[in-house]
Amino acid sequence: MTVEHDVRDLSLATGGRYRIDWANNEMPVLSAIQERFAKEKPLKGLRVSACLHVTTETANLMRTLQAGGAEVVLCASNPLSTQDDVAASLVAHDEIPVYAIKGEDNSTYYDHITAALDHQPHITMDDGADLVGTIHKSRRELLDVIKAGTEETTTGVIRLRAMAKDGALAFPVLAVNDSNTKHLFDNRYGTGQSTIDGVIRATNILLAGRTVVVAGYGWCSRGIASRASGMGSNVIVTEVDPMRALEAVMDGFRVMPMMQAAPIGDIFITATGDINVLDVHHFEAMKPGAIVANSGHFNVEINLKGLREISVDAPKLVRPYVEAYVLKGGKPVYVLGEGRLINLAAAEGHPASVMDMSFANQALGAEYMIRNFESLTPDVYVIPEDVDKEIARLKLASMGIKIDTLTPEQFAYLNQWEEGT
Amino acid sequence: MTVEHDVRDLSLATGGRYRIDWANNEMPVLSAIQERFAKEKPLKGLRVSACLHVTTETANLMRTLQAGGAEVVLCASNPLSTQDDVAASLVAHDEIPVYAIKGEDNSTYYDHITAALDHQPHITMDDGADLVGTIHKSRRELLDVIKAGTEETTTGVIRLRAMAKDGALAFPVLAVNDSNTKHLFDNRYGTGQSTIDGVIRATNILLAGRTVVVAGYGWCSRGIASRASGMGSNVIVTEVDPMRALEAVMDGFRVMPMMQAAPIGDIFITATGDINVLDVHHFEAMKPGAIVANSGHFNVEINLKGLREISVDAPKLVRPYVEAYVLKGGKPVYVLGEGRLINLAAAEGHPASVMDMSFANQALGAEYMIRNFESLTPDVYVIPEDVDKEIARLKLASMGIKIDTLTPEQFAYLNQWEEGT
Amino acid sequence: MTVEHDVRDLSLATGGRYRIDWANNEMPVLSAIQERFAKEKPLKGLRVSACLHVTTETANLMRTLQAGGAEVVLCASNPLSTQDDVAASLVAHDEIPVYAIKGEDNSTYYDHITAALDHQPHITMDDGADLVGTIHKSRRELLDVIKAGTEETTTGVIRLRAMAKDGALAFPVLAVNDSNTKHLFDNRYGTGQSTIDGVIRATNILLAGRTVVVAGYGWCSRGIASRASGMGSNVIVTEVDPMRALEAVMDGFRVMPMMQAAPIGDIFITATGDINVLDVHHFEAMKPGAIVANSGHFNVEINLKGLREISVDAPKLVRPYVEAYVLKGGKPVYVLGEGRLINLAAAEGHPASVMDMSFANQALGAEYMIRNFESLTPDVYVIPEDVDKEIARLKLASMGIKIDTLTPEQFAYLNQWEEGT
Amino acid sequence: MTVEHDVRDLSLATGGRYRIDWANNEMPVLSAIQERFAKEKPLKGLRVSACLHVTTETANLMRTLQAGGAEVVLCASNPLSTQDDVAASLVAHDEIPVYAIKGEDNSTYYDHITAALDHQPHITMDDGADLVGTIHKSRRELLDVIKAGTEETTTGVIRLRAMAKDGALAFPVLAVNDSNTKHLFDNRYGTGQSTIDGVIRATNILLAGRTVVVAGYGWCSRGIASRASGMGSNVIVTEVDPMRALEAVMDGFRVMPMMQAAPIGDIFITATGDINVLDVHHFEAMKPGAIVANSGHFNVEINLKGLREISVDAPKLVRPYVEAYVLKGGKPVYVLGEGRLINLAAAEGHPASVMDMSFANQALGAEYMIRNFESLTPDVYVIPEDVDKEIARLKLASMGIKIDTLTPEQFAYLNQWEEGT
Repeated sequence: MTVEHDVRDLSLATGGRYRIDWANNEMPVLSAIQERFAKEKPLKGLRVSACLHVTTETANLMRTLQAGGAEVVLCASNPLSTQDDVAASLVAHDEIPVYAIKGEDNSTYYDHITAALDHQPHITMDDGADLVGTIHKSRRELLDVIKAGTEETTTGVIRLRAMAKDGALAFPVLAVNDSNTKHLFDNRYGTGQSTIDGVIRATNILLAGRTVVVAGYGWCSRGIASRASGMGSNVIVTEVDPMRALEAVMDGFRVMPMMQAAPIGDIFITATGDINVLDVHHFEAMKPGAIVANSGHFNVEINLKGLREISVDAPKLVRPYVEAYVLKGGKPVYVLGEGRLINLAAAEGHPASVMDMSFANQALGAEYMIRNFESLTPDVYVIPEDVDKEIARLKLASMGIKIDTLTPEQFAYLNQWEEGT
Repeated sequence: MTVEHDVRDLSLATGGRYRIDWANNEMPVLSAIQERFAKEKPLKGLRVSACLHVTTETANLMRTLQAGGAEVVLCASNPLSTQDDVAASLVAHDEIPVYAIKGEDNSTYYDHITAALDHQPHITMDDGADLVGTIHKSRRELLDVIKAGTEETTTGVIRLRAMAKDGALAFPVLAVNDSNTKHLFDNRYGTGQSTIDGVIRATNILLAGRTVVVAGYGWCSRGIASRASGMGSNVIVTEVDPMRALEAVMDGFRVMPMMQAAPIGDIFITATGDINVLDVHHFEAMKPGAIVANSGHFNVEINLKGLREISVDAPKLVRPYVEAYVLKGGKPVYVLGEGRLINLAAAEGHPASVMDMSFANQALGAEYMIRNFESLTPDVYVIPEDVDKEIARLKLASMGIKIDTLTPEQFAYLNQWEEGT
Repeated sequence: MTVEHDVRDLSLATGGRYRIDWANNEMPVLSAIQERFAKEKPLKGLRVSACLHVTTETANLMRTLQAGGAEVVLCASNPLSTQDDVAASLVAHDEIPVYAIKGEDNSTYYDHITAALDHQPHITMDDGADLVGTIHKSRRELLDVIKAGTEETTTGVIRLRAMAKDGALAFPVLAVNDSNTKHLFDNRYGTGQSTIDGVIRATNILLAGRTVVVAGYGWCSRGIASRASGMGSNVIVTEVDPMRALEAVMDGFRVMPMMQAAPIGDIFITATGDINVLDVHHFEAMKPGAIVANSGHFNVEINLKGLREISVDAPKLVRPYVEAYVLKGGKPVYVLGEGRLINLAAAEGHPASVMDMSFANQALGAEYMIRNFESLTPDVYVIPEDVDKEIARLKLASMGIKIDTLTPEQFAYLNQWEEGT
Repeated sequence: MTVEHDVRDLSLATGGRYRIDWANNEMPVLSAIQERFAKEKPLKGLRVSACLHVTTETANLMRTLQAGGAEVVLCASNPLSTQDDVAASLVAHDEIPVYAIKGEDNSTYYDHITAALDHQPHITMDDGADLVGTIHKSRRELLDVIKAGTEETTTGVIRLRAMAKDGALAFPVLAVNDSNTKHLFDNRYGTGQSTIDGVIRATNILLAGRTVVVAGYGWCSRGIASRASGMGSNVIVTEVDPMRALEAVMDGFRVMPMMQAAPIGDIFITATGDINVLDVHHFEAMKPGAIVANSGHFNVEINLKGLREISVDAPKLVRPYVEAYVLKGGKPVYVLGEGRLINLAAAEGHPASVMDMSFANQALGAEYMIRNFESLTPDVYVIPEDVDKEIARLKLASMGIKIDTLTPEQFAYLNQWEEGT
């Protein structure tokens, strides 16, 4: 008998399992945690509702939580990011209820969130704060059950901090994104590589010699800028923060307002966490054939509604994940992956080896929150520094890399102040 | 009524057409040539047999030759590199006979070459010299018909020069690969990007922090090294030529013999044009989980036969394009795309925008050879420098890039020798 | 009549003035502050004792403080870093007492600190915490006069925090180093370029193809690693912090313990803030001809005493700033600039354009501390974020670079949490 | 008794000797040749007149030729590039007549060439073809004595080929520049690093965040572009050759005509071998404070005469090697090192380790020419490929780097053409 689920096709399960196992090879830190969890059962009896991208890496997180004793359900955190074979495998092989179908419409998307919440979670696990948002808006009865939550993304953390600032947040949430082993790696190296991967798979265009405009210079966007540059593109950065803008300048990139970049760029990639970063006046200023993609969490960064309004017709699919919007006058603008985060829409999302650290934070974060929730007021928390560093240490060890240790003399020197020049 | 063909499935034609058109957007130089060819018909009445990778870019070359008046047939130059939707579209929409099925076995592969040669070509167009090789070995009756040939790759040119040196070559062949607008761009930027693309699609592993061993430092391999480095990998180069080895050192890479690199590397990529660059003793020295891929033309660079012999079992597919060979003792070595050129096996081959220049050379090369073959002895030829530069000029123009021109005074200065310090 | 001073030679003043003015061109932010200070006189009547590297940039800071109404005296923060022509110009043209001679011995160095403290400062301005250290150890009577201090370096801030933790710090100090416009720029881009500059001036060796070992991966050391890599070196990083070590790995560098790097490296550069990072066992493991340099604040990072003990003879100068220590067995190890920070010993220190921001922080920091010292307990403080961002904004403006501004709609979006996917 | 000479000051000889010996450490290939020459005396009795940059590396070449039995005299190949201590040491310690004083005026410069030619050379050794040019114009009586020449630079080779094309060249000359071990390394890595070094020493400005315009994309200029980029600059390339322009684009640089770059650039560096690359209309379009430098052989690339004519006054020295030209309206343009090649004017020229290979070519080239001159018609020659590769092999060995060797099987495969896919 199969657990409850709503997935594309259970017959995809075997292929999914192969890919999940392949990813697991690249996730030695999470594997080590899974082994300990299996022995210690720190999550015994806990119900966890997770709203995450349904990928091979997430599958390994789910199995780790399950090994720790949790009863887990999973729904998608984005309509386009589900890998249907993975969803099938979790249901068929691990008996984990999954609600996620790649390309589901908006209403199904929210039905799936509802299904996940019906699990009556003690712990929520979010990627974009959709569970937390829904609970606070329309499922407030769950507040009696919920003990704590975790949040994966920059975007979600921005929302949660806004809630906390408004006094609206009703339970403590761990900002996994704020772990150094998360945002310094996943956001920068993971998003960097997988965004480029998504753009190439969608378009197969040569990046060398192209002008790539990256909106933002946060951890994600600087990863994208660095990798685009590494592929031979000439990169322009746009920013609203003068400090980051100045860093981008010093890193050798051109920095300018988007309106100035619009007629110059060949490819535009947004990763800001804000809305309408590419807006109607930008589209109007672009070159014929400009390509626009989003790598931020929500599909709000590109104003597609506005783009549709200045187009002569509905967008036309010219290649998988590439839609042509033809503006009055005949100029085409190509939108990739419907403006949804391109690394998951057109590629496979972050490589397992960075998700290893992010999800080590999720697993250890869930354990930490369940141990400490009673003493935590409703607010946004960061994982303790020693847990964070331990994850880095485990990762280095798994790569066979050794580092130096302070000698007692060096340790003492750093903690004294009496010795002079 | 459909032309003769052997393709996977004609119902794929529409999707193929979309992708061919998308590629055509990126091929403005070839488009310009096609326009002229359509007017001037310089290839009128000529039979052309092409043995090339059946990709969207090749499709646009075929259409260009057809526009120029040629009767074209096409077969695959590699069993794994065919895009079945493209093959279908050429048959269904352009009435070009195509003999190519992705994954065809060796015997079908050679049947397809035979079919292409049965076209009784005036001109052969090769990618790896398989047409020329077959003709000289077993179809020598065609030598009466054939006027000239063209060859796309480094590998093929090496073979042709060996033939010419032996006095075995029976008709003149243009080495398209030796055009600057070909090997400086296609080999370096095209192979660089598409090889990385192929490795990522096949494995989805994070390149940052990985040690990538690149065999060779020719134009292809230096493209690969540069892009791997641009993705955050630590790159090791192996070479047999001291000049290239020294360049690699000065470019900041580690250089060492393969046996020294074997136990250090995470990923190995060959692009040398030679056999057994990764051999049994190398596999035995590798780390568990090492990944090996080939980006050279022929699947001879990785000794798969030897690898099979030291494996406990037949290789097992663990992900599409990833096979695990498990060595005695349990160490897995992962081979990508059966050791065939990874950018075509697991990705889409070179981006259109570099193939634009390579295939401009093919089209103009065919025109050049047919105009001049009577005065050319059987040997390997290079396209005239002014044609080569003109292609570069057209490419720059298509990108909207202007450059300087020598003033008369500057021109004079460069051609005099009397003025001193 | 000349102010009190101890400088090399007042006849160098004119050359110094030219260079100070040249630097001033590159310091538009500090110039803008100087203009306002000249009008508002926010430091009127304050005595400031500064212990900084006596460079052209420092001269412009001194003139800015003077313009603001302060009575300034200046001594060197390192025996080797003084530019004698600058010291002369400040005395001769600006009537600022300076106590600093390039190459002064240790006893003169401390006499100069004493002279600076005899000025009875209200504000101390440190680069390495020598003024603060000396006051707390042996000039405690000054604690009655002093209102606040500022500190420029990572090294100094480490010492101050150790003091504050011990309850030993007796007045509030502003950690200028902790401003983003300081450490993100000065440490990274300034130290990066000027360290490479110092190494090249001292040795004139080709960096391309060399293995450069960088000790540390803090802001300074990652600047050095990045620039060495940009010059074609193959870079190895050593670290004690697993997080930073992992970042270095992901940035494409090799990471290993120093003992493993010692026999591989051609050039070793320390920038850790700790002692004996290069120690006797490392020297013994190095290749003949290895070059060692320090870019950290204090000359404690290379154990020169230990190196001398394993050398057969006193070190011999083989080029300006290059001393050969010959070990038993005849192996030479070359030490640059006596192990003092190489960018100031052998080159001109940070370029003016980064010091512009660091010293804008110093000037605005002095103003901030004098306005607020009464409400501040003795501790280490950071400049307010809005001041920090304003400096970045001024810097961008001076470069003619414009950036985007949040639209009201975007601002609102970032501050709400109710909108969903 | 001292040999004939015209140098600055013989008392500088000791310092020069230290630096020459330091350079010699970095020249293992030339040292190996020197050792063999000392035994075999292949140049016994030959008179060699060399017109080269008088640097530490050249000194080691002179000593090598002398060891081989040659009677050597040396004059400067550029008025600004002489290192006076080196000139002194060659006279004082090696009894080699030297005619070279840093900053000598034009008339002295030519007197020194005359002195070198009065030596009645059998072999000329040029860096810019001034000896060969002078002989052909005004010292044609020497044609009876001279057997052959060698030429170091791109610029010189351009002149020589123009002479040969005109039938004007009267003896065979070896184009050392055309050796791969010369131009691939010296031009690219040597000029790259030392040009950046020269610009930084002259100005001490921060390169990060600056827009650097590089004129040309030959071997020298691509070295400069690569290193400027490696220091964090945003690089623009200008070219007249479409092939090179396209390579620059694909390498990620912006490419545009100089007139378009003029108002954008912060720093302009020429390395084209042609005249007036920066001309009056460019200066007029530049930003106030623009910095211009030349890294090409002759000081003709920047039109200083034209710049002077649009300036209100004679240029004023604002820092060593930095002259301000103030244009009507008050805009300053800064010229570095009087427009002479900046790496020698403001820095120490190429690092020894690249000159090692260039001068190995000079030494072996002189030996080759003297062995073969009788069979060579007056033309420009290139060193045999096996000598070139042997130099690369020696260099790798001196760095302790091993490379792979073709197996017999691999060698055979590369030379056959019968094996198929």
